[in-house]
Amino acid sequence: MKKMILATSLALAVHTAQAWETLPEKAPAPADNPVTEAKVELGKTLYFDPRLSINGTQSCNSCHNVMAGGDDNRAFSQGATGKLGGRSAPTVWNAAFQSVQFWDGRADSLEAQASGPITNPVEMGMPSAKAAENRLKQIPGYKALFKKAFGSDEITMEAITKAIASYERTLITPNSPYDRFVKGDKQALTAEQQEGMALFEEVGCTSCHSGANFSGPAMAPGQGFYMSFPVFKDNEYVNKYDLLKDKGREEATGKAEDAHKYRVPTLRNIALTAPYFHNGSVKTLDEAVRVMAKTQLNKDLTEEQVRKITAFLEGLTGEFPEQTLPRLPGTNGTTLLVP
Amino acid sequence: MKKMILATSLALAVHTAQAWETLPEKAPAPADNPVTEAKVELGKTLYFDPRLSINGTQSCNSCHNVMAGGDDNRAFSQGATGKLGGRSAPTVWNAAFQSVQFWDGRADSLEAQASGPITNPVEMGMPSAKAAENRLKQIPGYKALFKKAFGSDEITMEAITKAIASYERTLITPNSPYDRFVKGDKQALTAEQQEGMALFEEVGCTSCHSGANFSGPAMAPGQGFYMSFPVFKDNEYVNKYDLLKDKGREEATGKAEDAHKYRVPTLRNIALTAPYFHNGSVKTLDEAVRVMAKTQLNKDLTEEQVRKITAFLEGLTGEFPEQTLPRLPGTNGTTLLVP
Repeated sequence: MKKMILATSLALAVHTAQAWETLPEKAPAPADNPVTEAKVELGKTLYFDPRLSINGTQSCNSCHNVMAGGDDNRAFSQGATGKLGGRSAPTVWNAAFQSVQFWDGRADSLEAQASGPITNPVEMGMPSAKAAENRLKQIPGYKALFKKAFGSDEITMEAITKAIASYERTLITPNSPYDRFVKGDKQALTAEQQEGMALFEEVGCTSCHSGANFSGPAMAPGQGFYMSFPVFKDNEYVNKYDLLKDKGREEATGKAEDAHKYRVPTLRNIALTAPYFHNGSVKTLDEAVRVMAKTQLNKDLTEEQVRKITAFLEGLTGEFPEQTLPRLPGTNGTTLLVP
Repeated sequence: MKKMILATSLALAVHTAQAWETLPEKAPAPADNPVTEAKVELGKTLYFDPRLSINGTQSCNSCHNVMAGGDDNRAFSQGATGKLGGRSAPTVWNAAFQSVQFWDGRADSLEAQASGPITNPVEMGMPSAKAAENRLKQIPGYKALFKKAFGSDEITMEAITKAIASYERTLITPNSPYDRFVKGDKQALTAEQQEGMALFEEVGCTSCHSGANFSGPAMAPGQGFYMSFPVFKDNEYVNKYDLLKDKGREEATGKAEDAHKYRVPTLRNIALTAPYFHNGSVKTLDEAVRVMAKTQLNKDLTEEQVRKITAFLEGLTGEFPEQTLPRLPGTNGTTLLVP
């Protein structure tokens, strides 16, 4: 409880002290994994390589589709062998600005996150980190890519995740209408969106969704900005969208005080990442706005307010950097996907 | 039987009459669907859009991966809902040079092929062409793309498949070591590969795998170049690799004379598309060479011959044109993948 109060007051303090922020052009990187071109190239190749899944049917991009909003627009993702995940896939776009990863914040870095799905039996399903390493070791072309990226051609899960994280740090969507508006282009947001922007603050959305990434105040890497969801439980939405079924961060920490707590997710590109919330239970953005206002702030918005806030949120869709398709290195005259 | 004899003598005639051919830079297109930049752009977007599958988990690229050899390196592809296909996914690279599509040649054009997997229940699983059209009609951004490509924003399966086929006509891999060798660069193939090239002809592989695409003589569009496989049934491979289980083209035409006939597939990029044959039963290229020589020509190759022919076939891997990732148009604030 103490933690939550601290986090909340921090957020309010940060919010009131600061103006609207634009998205930085570069994402922070840990000291032991600076972003380099070679790591990004390797990371992109790995990100798109379905051979990191047990049966070769899924890559990172399958559920975190960078050709779209960075997720899969499904309530729960389907894994390589047809199983369903337990939470909705978060977007990979601008994930580099989140201080912790996963809905429950259980990974303290992009590096720590990247290995999760590869060895998760309901996701990519590799039996172990070792198995993933061995898979890649059998693809001759990767040797040179690892060598170029890390100075050593040793293929380890640490290097794999460092490379993927480096690629993800380039997945930034600047110049949304919101950003252009904040930078001075007063035509970038419509009148309705500007009213929505003011409402977004007045209603109290910014008490959590603050900062450049609309995911809370700047935290030290690995330190999460967590909030309870739902805060207010006595409303129709809690049952309708089954909001108490998932224990949230408690499932990661085992601590009762973490029940129903989640990392505050980014709202950037939110118009592209329906359905909404950890369980993907809400199909549309306007309904997500209604639910949030009621469950988090105990406010019943008018339809006009919902419309304006939704319009503002649509103004958070940024520009997606053009990328080339990676070439996946081959396995000359054989396959790793047949016993 | 008459048909096969005709085809065989045609192939031999063409082969002996012509020198080794290089891959054309452009693929032929039907008169009613000339390739344009706008169609290619739309087609690429559709090719990568998983919303053409029932649950949004698969795109054309899932099984025909252009980041790799244009297939999925699996024996049988896994469909959107986890079912397995009945034949190994053929490569999409240079498919534009095949006069018919699918292993059994049942589609007489790339356009006719493209609709197949979308509505196949074990592949992308859309219940009907109408359902696929309706899915795309709900994605606002596609309207402008269809308008630009076809002059009309009507979204029909005909337009969808014309666009995808147009994109596929750009998937050409020129300048393989073989092509460079034929064009005069005598260093492009190693001495071993050159010996393999001579053996490839002497042994008789070119009686079927002739022409620029190594898939037989130039045929009129829609006219297939079919061969029986296996021709010689009295050998260990037929049982070992279960080569008689699939009835081949008979399953498409219902005619006994088409039993075990298949379209002669390209050998370009063959080193990237293991496992081999319609049933993906052979894991490695050298074994595929042994099997072909025995089942098609009744020849037992020495290990040296196998090695040389395999080395030559590795020289058929071309250059893959650099492409940008498409942007998939969004569905503002909602998803089509939740009921």
